[in-house]
Amino acid sequence: MSFNTFGHLFRVTTWGESHGPALGATVDGCPPGIALDEAFIQQFLDRRRPGQSKETTQRREPDAVRILSGVFEGRTTGTPIQLMIENTDQRSKDYGEIARQFRPGHADITYHQKYGIRDYRGGGRSSARETAARVAAGGVAQAVLRQLVPDLRIYGYMVQMGAKHIHRERFDREEILRNPFFIPDAEAVDEWADYLAAIRKNHNSVGAAIEVVAEGCPAGLGAPIYAKMDTDLAAAMMSINAVKGVEIGEGMAAAALTGVENADEMVMGEDGVEYLSNHAGGILGGITTGQPITVRFAVKPTSSILTPRRSVNVAGEEVEVITKGRHDPCVGIRAVPVAEAMMACVILDHYLLDRGQTGGVRGAIG
Amino acid sequence: MSFNTFGHLFRVTTWGESHGPALGATVDGCPPGIALDEAFIQQFLDRRRPGQSKETTQRREPDAVRILSGVFEGRTTGTPIQLMIENTDQRSKDYGEIARQFRPGHADITYHQKYGIRDYRGGGRSSARETAARVAAGGVAQAVLRQLVPDLRIYGYMVQMGAKHIHRERFDREEILRNPFFIPDAEAVDEWADYLAAIRKNHNSVGAAIEVVAEGCPAGLGAPIYAKMDTDLAAAMMSINAVKGVEIGEGMAAAALTGVENADEMVMGEDGVEYLSNHAGGILGGITTGQPITVRFAVKPTSSILTPRRSVNVAGEEVEVITKGRHDPCVGIRAVPVAEAMMACVILDHYLLDRGQTGGVRGAIG
Amino acid sequence: MSFNTFGHLFRVTTWGESHGPALGATVDGCPPGIALDEAFIQQFLDRRRPGQSKETTQRREPDAVRILSGVFEGRTTGTPIQLMIENTDQRSKDYGEIARQFRPGHADITYHQKYGIRDYRGGGRSSARETAARVAAGGVAQAVLRQLVPDLRIYGYMVQMGAKHIHRERFDREEILRNPFFIPDAEAVDEWADYLAAIRKNHNSVGAAIEVVAEGCPAGLGAPIYAKMDTDLAAAMMSINAVKGVEIGEGMAAAALTGVENADEMVMGEDGVEYLSNHAGGILGGITTGQPITVRFAVKPTSSILTPRRSVNVAGEEVEVITKGRHDPCVGIRAVPVAEAMMACVILDHYLLDRGQTGGVRGAIG
Amino acid sequence: MSFNTFGHLFRVTTWGESHGPALGATVDGCPPGIALDEAFIQQFLDRRRPGQSKETTQRREPDAVRILSGVFEGRTTGTPIQLMIENTDQRSKDYGEIARQFRPGHADITYHQKYGIRDYRGGGRSSARETAARVAAGGVAQAVLRQLVPDLRIYGYMVQMGAKHIHRERFDREEILRNPFFIPDAEAVDEWADYLAAIRKNHNSVGAAIEVVAEGCPAGLGAPIYAKMDTDLAAAMMSINAVKGVEIGEGMAAAALTGVENADEMVMGEDGVEYLSNHAGGILGGITTGQPITVRFAVKPTSSILTPRRSVNVAGEEVEVITKGRHDPCVGIRAVPVAEAMMACVILDHYLLDRGQTGGVRGAIG
Repeated sequence: MSFNTFGHLFRVTTWGESHGPALGATVDGCPPGIALDEAFIQQFLDRRRPGQSKETTQRREPDAVRILSGVFEGRTTGTPIQLMIENTDQRSKDYGEIARQFRPGHADITYHQKYGIRDYRGGGRSSARETAARVAAGGVAQAVLRQLVPDLRIYGYMVQMGAKHIHRERFDREEILRNPFFIPDAEAVDEWADYLAAIRKNHNSVGAAIEVVAEGCPAGLGAPIYAKMDTDLAAAMMSINAVKGVEIGEGMAAAALTGVENADEMVMGEDGVEYLSNHAGGILGGITTGQPITVRFAVKPTSSILTPRRSVNVAGEEVEVITKGRHDPCVGIRAVPVAEAMMACVILDHYLLDRGQTGGVRGAIG
Repeated sequence: MSFNTFGHLFRVTTWGESHGPALGATVDGCPPGIALDEAFIQQFLDRRRPGQSKETTQRREPDAVRILSGVFEGRTTGTPIQLMIENTDQRSKDYGEIARQFRPGHADITYHQKYGIRDYRGGGRSSARETAARVAAGGVAQAVLRQLVPDLRIYGYMVQMGAKHIHRERFDREEILRNPFFIPDAEAVDEWADYLAAIRKNHNSVGAAIEVVAEGCPAGLGAPIYAKMDTDLAAAMMSINAVKGVEIGEGMAAAALTGVENADEMVMGEDGVEYLSNHAGGILGGITTGQPITVRFAVKPTSSILTPRRSVNVAGEEVEVITKGRHDPCVGIRAVPVAEAMMACVILDHYLLDRGQTGGVRGAIG
Repeated sequence: MSFNTFGHLFRVTTWGESHGPALGATVDGCPPGIALDEAFIQQFLDRRRPGQSKETTQRREPDAVRILSGVFEGRTTGTPIQLMIENTDQRSKDYGEIARQFRPGHADITYHQKYGIRDYRGGGRSSARETAARVAAGGVAQAVLRQLVPDLRIYGYMVQMGAKHIHRERFDREEILRNPFFIPDAEAVDEWADYLAAIRKNHNSVGAAIEVVAEGCPAGLGAPIYAKMDTDLAAAMMSINAVKGVEIGEGMAAAALTGVENADEMVMGEDGVEYLSNHAGGILGGITTGQPITVRFAVKPTSSILTPRRSVNVAGEEVEVITKGRHDPCVGIRAVPVAEAMMACVILDHYLLDRGQTGGVRGAIG
Repeated sequence: MSFNTFGHLFRVTTWGESHGPALGATVDGCPPGIALDEAFIQQFLDRRRPGQSKETTQRREPDAVRILSGVFEGRTTGTPIQLMIENTDQRSKDYGEIARQFRPGHADITYHQKYGIRDYRGGGRSSARETAARVAAGGVAQAVLRQLVPDLRIYGYMVQMGAKHIHRERFDREEILRNPFFIPDAEAVDEWADYLAAIRKNHNSVGAAIEVVAEGCPAGLGAPIYAKMDTDLAAAMMSINAVKGVEIGEGMAAAALTGVENADEMVMGEDGVEYLSNHAGGILGGITTGQPITVRFAVKPTSSILTPRRSVNVAGEEVEVITKGRHDPCVGIRAVPVAEAMMACVILDHYLLDRGQTGGVRGAIG
């Protein structure tokens, strides 16, 4: 990872600010010959799009992606794919106060301190809008994975929103796509909706926890030490705006376990090794086991709220900051498709890396 | 990060296996003219060294580091520093069963699946012994930081071991260095020692959670999006053996907070901006605020235990695995100096990156 | 360098094909606070633009660059700068034969062999049109260098076109900008023009050699071994389409020199060390000396010519290939501003790298 | 490439100074399961070893390589391979003058200017001794290539030494290994030996040009734009000490050619496409054609000579410098095995990169 690029062989560089003319992603190192068009990518962007429910921001942009390079006659050419999303909804407005104030919990102040200049319009580069570019890049990764790892299924969902937690015993994967919160629990939807409506009404916002699972990932992807699959997944998730924690498998709960409990015992099944549990979250020593990869992460509450908070401005004056405008009361909701995109990119990257180094040969068992 | 290298400008590449002739680290990109000798680095290695208490492995090696290059007349030259630690305690023994079996929860099986070959002696490359090389590299980073960022203080400590948690109200930073568990709580030491002794006696092991803090880090280090300070810290910690979760500031608990609670309000103090809280853990938008950087991570319990666990072997036969030999009942203890080393490397790397891009100029406030 | 990215800290990623909707460059790692607008970059593009003389291709596009991100209120923000050039002159035509044939000396066949697919429209990604993106990125580098290294002057010129060589004794730097061939020799212009006209008339093309000089570069930029200033310059020039050789200082002629001849002797001048010669081309051990950096490179003749050449097609049939359309008889001419752009990017990158690692401190002499 | 590392997937990091305790290379990303031992690597080092003829330096070190990691039971494990060569012949001596003077044409002064400190013993990091580490790494690459690309043959030879050029019509590949100059021309050996003896007797040194050829490299390796095969080869050769120019195929001579002459025409042979010439040197658009890859480079004369040259010292005093001690009168001779090693590393790296991105699928012709 370097500044605005991530990935080793499948490399994604994003660019663009919230209120500039456009934003996008350059995808380099994509395998050639993969069927790809804008409609395929658009479906991922549409899942992330604000304005789908009253609980996500009211900004109504189509977020229409254009492929500017790297695809010819419907197939990838192996050269860089430029994905551009124009910012059509740039309302011009007076940014007077925002330009000089620092919102508590927001990158306003650190951008100012580091660069001595910041694009304050809508958060500029620090806006969650940057994640649209990742989702577009993730769409490319998904297209490639469908061909190279057809059994792979990546899906994310909310597991917590503030005080609300899902009930694992009611987990329903199909439900995730049916409600605007990506909750895998039909019974919880109304409850969560009411909860979030109250949060919003109180001029407040709330954090969330998201889980992303990759099923059907072959064993042997990843690498030891510093390019571990879990290292790259942790970095990928932590790079998403507002994320403050990342867990693989048991995650932080592993601290409370004993070795006897944590051992994922193995037996021989009809198709080879089978694990009796998955505390590891599908990764051992940085390399995939073939079990589902499970990642969880926490998103802090939106820092842009209508409740006044104490802060300072560029002149060093103490001020009270209220952030008006379009802001999700729970930015974590939209992080679900973003996390799926990041996971798709990381897994594909490691698939290519592994194919490069080992040729995809696998040590046999039995 | 790429395979066995991490860092952008201050780059560390580690090499070596548990039972090979030696292991070490190549440190590239180190600033020139920094006073450095083996004794300085050795003190960090000594903190990590096994055999310090009865609760860490009995392997009694001096872990003596040699500087083979990059230092001349007691100062760094700006060229690569090779740090080598010879493995003096390679007991020769019969690895018959271990060579063919896969320990549950261990990287044995994934190394085998990925590479078709594995150095089974003591875990080979997957051994926690690799972390000695990181600690040595961290010593170099510490030497540089003392000159470039003299106010910086990095310290780690245990916050949890299995069922035991520290009491924050009894926090005593001085105590950390006095007990073999790196616990910041003198009252807890005996209790934790007894707890761990019982774990060991029961042929079991236990997980842990560690917190690492960097005080005195200037504002403005880090970068948005994919080379965020928190992204790199998360990757650095997740790359340590057995780590399953990483948190910055509030971490996973951020999911439960509201925006009003989570906002770190700011006021003007005598020396500039002051924050009334530090939910952010010292990082906003991937860039340091000047507040203490706080990172927490969980280490799973050692998978090498004396209690038999079900597993398979290379021939595809079901077996019961018992791992004899020298193994920490709580590998998390030794992760403390490792995490400090990783944090030192990451902060220095970002210091150099920032100096490169911005020249260290800072936007003024007031 | 990785696929479509070059640079360590000042990183440029180009994208786009000759006949796609647009092409461009993402510039990452740019220092913040630098004055920059489209007009500044445009002047560099205008120098490279085809259609300026009858000897460069007739494609008449404005090559107007747009800045889509990373610049706010006329200054760089430190976040990625997206530079886009739309391809307005995409004449639609029948590519029937070109799509199936491989032009001798062209990348047609290797793209096909590597990727199994190629964008044959105007050469696709292999078109020299890609260099427009580099020139735009070079404009950004020039803007930064004017502020950070104000004494630096980079200029390139033709030294050879087929059988024609410049006369060093008539060297006139001012003349370079006055003629369409970038020749530093007013007397030669008509002669070269006639020569090239004859080449074109004969349905032929011709190679060229270009020299690029950087005056005013401070001592101490670059690094030993693999990130040497000359290594990066060699890579930068060799990455330009059709380049087959690169020389620093004496270049290939160094093979004929003795040590006595080649030694650049030093004396103390009023402002410090002075060199009595510059065989080294301004670089010793990969690090700049403060003398002018001199790089020379050869560009092969355009492979797209009207003279029939024997080749094969995708079906494995032998064919005679004639390439119609707009093609420079000497593609080397336009390589001059491209090489200047590459040199600007490389020098800036090393300036930032050096500032990062050493803080710009210099060992004194005297 | 970054400082002391080169390669994308097959990554080599070298370390060590001329007169430190040891030097070496860390090879990361090596495919697993490759047969490898010290004896195999040693044969490459022995070809480079000084002291083989009276015309290379008299330093008599065995240059014995040790494999410290990454190889288990005679096969690579896929983890980093540490190659160490101890400096056994560190004659202790008084470096008084050398420590303060700057040899003309040498990196003494630029290291001092950049870092403010330099290891002056034998040139420290800038010594050609660093190339021993590359040769060892090249041995690893050769072991892998023998298995993955068994038809590949890489061989280098001198084509020029000062005023002496080889006669292409007397080219004899077998002869290269028989004489200490790597000359492919038995008749020339005595003549060149006398020539070099006279150079040495005159307290002088002389430059050289070397050609390296890779036969049997498959089509499709490399990538467009910035990771072109020729870009990486140019960088690899330019990174060797004292190299001032690099050519691919026609090289600088391409500037004099017309498009009609330069076109490598193609016909269909029994085994597919055949080229009627190889002006391109086996690379088109950065991607291999399957023809022999031909690279040429020039090495400047050794700057350490017994003839006094004018220079300055650290105190800013003008001095006359004479360099005593063991120095090759033609350092280019030993560059031959170094260049072969670099080519092996680059080709393997691109083989792995291509396998990663494309899976090695090739577009068919016919």
